[in-house]
Amino acid sequence: MKANIIVTLKNGLLDPQGKAIEGALKSLDIPGVESVRQGKIFEVELAEQDKAKAQALLKAACEKLLANTIVENYRIELA
Amino acid sequence: MKANIIVTLKNGLLDPQGKAIEGALKSLDIPGVESVRQGKIFEVELAEQDKAKAQALLKAACEKLLANTIVENYRIELA
Repeated sequence: MKANIIVTLKNGLLDPQGKAIEGALKSLDIPGVESVRQGKIFEVELAEQDKAKAQALLKAACEKLLANTIVENYRIELA
Repeated sequence: MKANIIVTLKNGLLDPQGKAIEGALKSLDIPGVESVRQGKIFEVELAEQDKAKAQALLKAACEKLLANTIVENYRIELA
C-alpha cells in the first residue's frame, strides 16, 4: 500500500524558506503570488494492506520521527 | 486560489534521506516499511482565479525556481 505523509509548519509560525521563495518568484516576474509555505512530503510504501492498520503505523511514524508536533502539522493520505 | 506543488526525486535516483528514514523507522520498531522517498511540497496562494492561467504561472515557477527538472519531477495540484 502506498501512502503520502505531508508535514507542514503550523499556521502562524514564520516560514523563512517560504518567504525567500516568495521573494524569488517576484524577482523572476511571476506575478500574483500571495504566499508560499514549504513543507515536506514522504512517499511511503507499506507491506500492510489493511487501511486502518496502515493508518495507525503511519501515525506512530509521524509522532516518533517524521514530524515535530510542537511546531508542525502532519496529514496522512492513503492511496 | 490555493495550489500545492509537489517536487520529488525522479525514480531510479538514489534518495539517501529516504533511506535514512527507512532505517530509522525500522530501528523504532515500525514494521513493514518497504520504501520511503522524501520530497518537498510548496503550498502557494495565488491572486489568479483562472485555473488555466494559474497552472501556467505555477509551471513557470517550477521550471524556473522550484524544481531541478534534470533530477526532479514536479506536479501541480490546484485546489
